[in-house]
Amino acid sequence: MNTYEIAAIPGDGIGVDVTVEARKVLDRAAELFDFRLQWTEFDWSCERYTQTGRMMPEDGIDQLARFDGILLGAVGFPGVPDHVSLWGLLIPVRRAFAQYVNLRPVRLLPGTTSVLSGRGADELEMVIVRENSEGEYSAIGGRHNTGQPSEFVLQESVFTRVGVERIIRYAFELARTRGGRVCSATKSNGLIHSMPYWDEIFAEVAAEYPEVHSEQCHVDALAARMVQHPDRLDVVVASNLFGDILSDLAAAVTGGLGMAPSGNINPPGEHPSMFEAVHGSAPDIAGKGIANPVAQVLAAAMMLEHLGETVAAQAVNAAVEKVLAEGAVATPDLGGTSTTEELGSAITEAL
Amino acid sequence: MNTYEIAAIPGDGIGVDVTVEARKVLDRAAELFDFRLQWTEFDWSCERYTQTGRMMPEDGIDQLARFDGILLGAVGFPGVPDHVSLWGLLIPVRRAFAQYVNLRPVRLLPGTTSVLSGRGADELEMVIVRENSEGEYSAIGGRHNTGQPSEFVLQESVFTRVGVERIIRYAFELARTRGGRVCSATKSNGLIHSMPYWDEIFAEVAAEYPEVHSEQCHVDALAARMVQHPDRLDVVVASNLFGDILSDLAAAVTGGLGMAPSGNINPPGEHPSMFEAVHGSAPDIAGKGIANPVAQVLAAAMMLEHLGETVAAQAVNAAVEKVLAEGAVATPDLGGTSTTEELGSAITEAL
Ligand SMILES: CC(C)[C@H](C(=O)O)[C@@H](O)C(=O)O
Ligand SMILES: CC(C)[C@H](C(=O)O)[C@@H](O)C(=O)O
Repeated sequence: MNTYEIAAIPGDGIGVDVTVEARKVLDRAAELFDFRLQWTEFDWSCERYTQTGRMMPEDGIDQLARFDGILLGAVGFPGVPDHVSLWGLLIPVRRAFAQYVNLRPVRLLPGTTSVLSGRGADELEMVIVRENSEGEYSAIGGRHNTGQPSEFVLQESVFTRVGVERIIRYAFELARTRGGRVCSATKSNGLIHSMPYWDEIFAEVAAEYPEVHSEQCHVDALAARMVQHPDRLDVVVASNLFGDILSDLAAAVTGGLGMAPSGNINPPGEHPSMFEAVHGSAPDIAGKGIANPVAQVLAAAMMLEHLGETVAAQAVNAAVEKVLAEGAVATPDLGGTSTTEELGSAITEAL
Repeated sequence: MNTYEIAAIPGDGIGVDVTVEARKVLDRAAELFDFRLQWTEFDWSCERYTQTGRMMPEDGIDQLARFDGILLGAVGFPGVPDHVSLWGLLIPVRRAFAQYVNLRPVRLLPGTTSVLSGRGADELEMVIVRENSEGEYSAIGGRHNTGQPSEFVLQESVFTRVGVERIIRYAFELARTRGGRVCSATKSNGLIHSMPYWDEIFAEVAAEYPEVHSEQCHVDALAARMVQHPDRLDVVVASNLFGDILSDLAAAVTGGLGMAPSGNINPPGEHPSMFEAVHGSAPDIAGKGIANPVAQVLAAAMMLEHLGETVAAQAVNAAVEKVLAEGAVATPDLGGTSTTEELGSAITEAL
């Protein structure tokens, strides 16, 4: 029997609420599909930060290194600046473990409707392949002439050949296994160093995949296209920042942020990968038992898939679809009155 | 009788088609409302670039300086890289004339429907106040270790106190005259130098306007909100790049890019301001007489407003609304079969 060591980091807010449910579903899947999940829970969070001054211990990365997978809830808490909480946990994990792919599949699930009028599930299925290790998210920069009228701030974006090439190649490999189309988000008309470079490498890699249809689109026009012609998109490859924006938008035009999972993936498998819902910690509804656990359950299914438990992953996805299609158990964001726990249990039973 | 000197730069593609119509409407407005427009047309474009190696003459900025307003079509042409065409004309004009506000009002016009289901005109009316002179659009940066495995590119974003403060102040002043709400687009959790600085100045300025409701929202969540809860937005203030993305998205959820005008404004009036449709040169439909001229006509109306001809500006807006509401004359993007010229003439007559 395969045994997987999993680190659970529920984090803050509704991250805690939804991670409990995702664990429940996965434990049931392990029973049914004959593998073992060995959980270790970490209390790394903003709450911990307010007590200890650190989001995670100094050797946090070393502690995580031995795991087969990481399930992260969400981090963020009023009073702790976001750049502290995220650069103290989420972003270092992504980078230390070379989780250079942020994979964000979106589709319209059964029983849900899109905010876009007249768009059905067959027109709303795509995957955002977001660069996850460099680009616009950089700690390089700073403030000059502080306090003077000439004060200014510099913020550096960093695009390496290695970083750009590997994410674009990943997108083409993925496109081969699905619709056969890749659209690259650019903005080479405004950002005249980084984005022409991105485009150049995109063209190079595209030439190696003549069987995949490739195109590029400025990020502003691509955002517009996502609401006007989402059916014309399949695999979208984007830089860290553009992928962040486009994946939230894509989630919003499909079932909403309560339904969107994501994987922070280290493709060679040399380091653990980390799975999380796209949504944040939503302090306003935290602890009320009304958060939608679906995104986190789907993220957990992505983890099973990544671990090689494909049949179990598919079963979890099918269980989610069944419960949503029936519609009897639904959290408030889905138009129902069920609790987080009730929806988690319904999915567990449907399994 | 007031006389205004106007520079018309039709540019490329459909920029030419729609600028002809906008001029026609404005000339009629001048007759009716008793002012004079003295037009000077410039052939600055990608076509000119392919002949002369320059988008505009070396003294182009000096030539424009004496005008009261500039009406720009669009620039961009297959074969001329976008960063050449734009940094050779559009962006230098924005910067040389300190057009630091890019004002992009969007609303659902009569006779049109939103791609968002069930959203009416009363829920879809906002204005994007985009920073237009600095930020992420910067020429600073370059490539290092060219051709080596360690090759990388740096792209610098520049945020000055002067630049950030003046655009945020403009947004608050504007909010005072309308809904009384400002939402600032940020991403301080990812971009940890530029955006915390933006947020800090936003908080400072907000404190001076206690009567205006202010909030900030990460750009990813804001893009999602624009399709999920557009009714909760009024004035949105954003950096150059974020404003670019959000304004295209906002146009897409209202009537589409064929309907969205914009003004590149120098608020003190020391230099000419420039007005243009949000859409690009759309080479695929250029010269076919099917482009929608509405965005450019509305941009021209913004120019009249800026020149102080408020009554005429309102009349042009009303004429556009009347023609759209009747729906008899409509270009293909509006579901009709009329030509650019027919729609332009219908608006002129409705005046
Ligand atoms: C053409 C391009 C450089 C420009 C911009 O991004 O500023 C355009 O998209 C716009 O919005 O005016
Ligand atoms: C919280 C934030 C830093 C993060 C990001 O932008 O990467 C989040 O929005 C996400 O999409 O995972």
